Order: sequence, then structure tokens, then C-alpha cells
Amino acid sequence: MSSDVAGDGSVPAASAGRYFEDFSVGLAFRSKGTVGVTAERIKSFAEEFDPQPFHLDDAAARETLLGGLSASGWHTAAVAMRLIVDSDLGLSGHGAGVEIESMRWRRPVQAGDTLRVEGTVIETRASRSHADRGIVKFRAVATNQKNEVVLEATHVMVVRRRKSASLSG
Amino acid sequence: MSSDVAGDGSVPAASAGRYFEDFSVGLAFRSKGTVGVTAERIKSFAEEFDPQPFHLDDAAARETLLGGLSASGWHTAAVAMRLIVDSDLGLSGHGAGVEIESMRWRRPVQAGDTLRVEGTVIETRASRSHADRGIVKFRAVATNQKNEVVLEATHVMVVRRRKSASLSG
Repeated sequence: MSSDVAGDGSVPAASAGRYFEDFSVGLAFRSKGTVGVTAERIKSFAEEFDPQPFHLDDAAARETLLGGLSASGWHTAAVAMRLIVDSDLGLSGHGAGVEIESMRWRRPVQAGDTLRVEGTVIETRASRSHADRGIVKFRAVATNQKNEVVLEATHVMVVRRRKSASLSG
Repeated sequence: MSSDVAGDGSVPAASAGRYFEDFSVGLAFRSKGTVGVTAERIKSFAEEFDPQPFHLDDAAARETLLGGLSASGWHTAAVAMRLIVDSDLGLSGHGAGVEIESMRWRRPVQAGDTLRVEGTVIETRASRSHADRGIVKFRAVATNQKNEVVLEATHVMVVRRRKSASLSG
């Protein structure tokens, strides 16, 4: 009760994020910075995780539906996650993603693009199965430097409640 | 016109995958190999894309809902994509992912886990807007070495049709 992370014990400094009670519908967040996507990282990510021609080679990519070298959608999604973690949404250790309800890649991400994310909490509810946690749902939209939407997703997280005095004492 | 992607015609060797017409509902696929996930890669992926305590540090992770060092869900999703690309689903340049209808992380992926993927095509339909392509939807399930499901997702792809004689001539 004395400090927000005391009681059962210390919580790592990096975990000074929001508990379930700190989220409310309509809470808006945005990434603090941007992340640039380079051709080199597009290709190296794809070599490891998504070795399809349009993510690996400029010439081959021109013959595909994407029309040119483009980041793997999973690379874009991972960059978006980094931007969400670095946003003022306040994820840092009290919750964990459990589901993506929908995710759409609206436009290819190309070398030189710079991404940022904005989003909003759209639902919060108590967990039916665990008294010590709740569900937080948020919508996140990643845009490029031209303000074009590249990715939209609805995330579902499980987030811890603050410990009550009876639990922590 | 002169290179290995001449005209409409020859397709690079790496692109010997399925066209829209080659997919049908019920088509099953499985990854040819497995991918192991190490503590080092869990941490380095998280440092770049998802720097939350349970993906970065064993001790800090024990204090969280995940109970121990676990791969970022986006790391798991990227590994699953690699397994799908390396499967007999036959993705290689004729299509592109446009949407994930749902994705659930069923269980944490921990250091030392070895993943594989199985899946099934659940829908194919012509594109309403583009005569040269169709929509292919498939379900993919990633499991660990104990046959426990770690990730389930429904993918939506746009895939090119084979070029007709009239188009290619």
C-alpha cells in the first residue's frame, strides 16, 4: 500500500507500467518516436523469417503483386510492436498479449519508410477466470512518413490488477 | 524481357509456388522441418522489437504473468511464418498476405522449444475487384516439441491466377 510496487515485493524498474485499473476505454496513446525501415533490415529479417522474393530481392520483387521490395508483414508487425512498447500506453511487465482479433496490412512498407503508431483502448473487462487480472483490448494503427496507414490491428492483453492490501500484506 | 522473368512468362526458380487455381479448400500443409528457439534469440529479438521484461531477463520474467523468459509473441509469429514458407503450402511470390483474421498465443514459447506448423486451406474465392487474382484463406497451428499448441492464426492472402493464353500472348 505504501508504494505502487511494494507489498509482495519489488518490481523491476522497467516495469513501471499500467495495471489493469489504470486502463480505461478511450485512453489514447502514440509512439514517442519513429522507426525507420532499411533495405538491409528488410532483407535480413526476411532471410530469417519470411524468405519470399518480394522481401529479398529488388528485381524479383518488381515481378510480384507488391511491385517492389517490401518488408515482410511480420517485420512491419514487429516494428509496430516496438512502437507500442515505446509509446505512452504503459506496457511493461504487468500484462501479456494473448490474441490479435484482426490485423490488416493496408500498404507495403518499403525501404526508407519511417513508421509511427497511434492507438486507443477500446475495451476493458474483468477476467472471468482469474480475480487478479483483467482484459484490455486496444486498436493500433501504424502509419508511414506520408501518413498512409500501413498496418491496423486489434490487440487483446491480459493485465494484472494492482495487488490489494490483503494480498500484499 | 531478356532475363529470367521475361515477358509474362518464365518465373524465377524460387517462385515455383502455387497460383490461385492451385489452392483448394481442405488442402493440408505442414512445415518440412522445425525451428528451435534459443534464449539468445528470444532476448535479441525482444531488444529490437518487444523490450518487455519477460522477453529480456530470466529473473524479471519470473515476476510476471508469463512466469519465466518467453519469446515475444511477434517472434513466435515470425518463426511460424518461416515454417509456413518452408512448408508444402507453396508460397513463393505469387501471393501476398493481406490480413490475419485472428491469432491467439496459446502458450508461451520458452528457450529450447522447437516449433513446427501444420495447417489447412479453409476458403478460396475470386477477387471482386481484380480479375487476375483470388483470395486464399488458411489456418495455421504452431506446436512445440511436446505437441502443445503455442500459436493459432487464420491468414488471408491475395494470390495471382495463372496467366491465360490471351493475356500472355
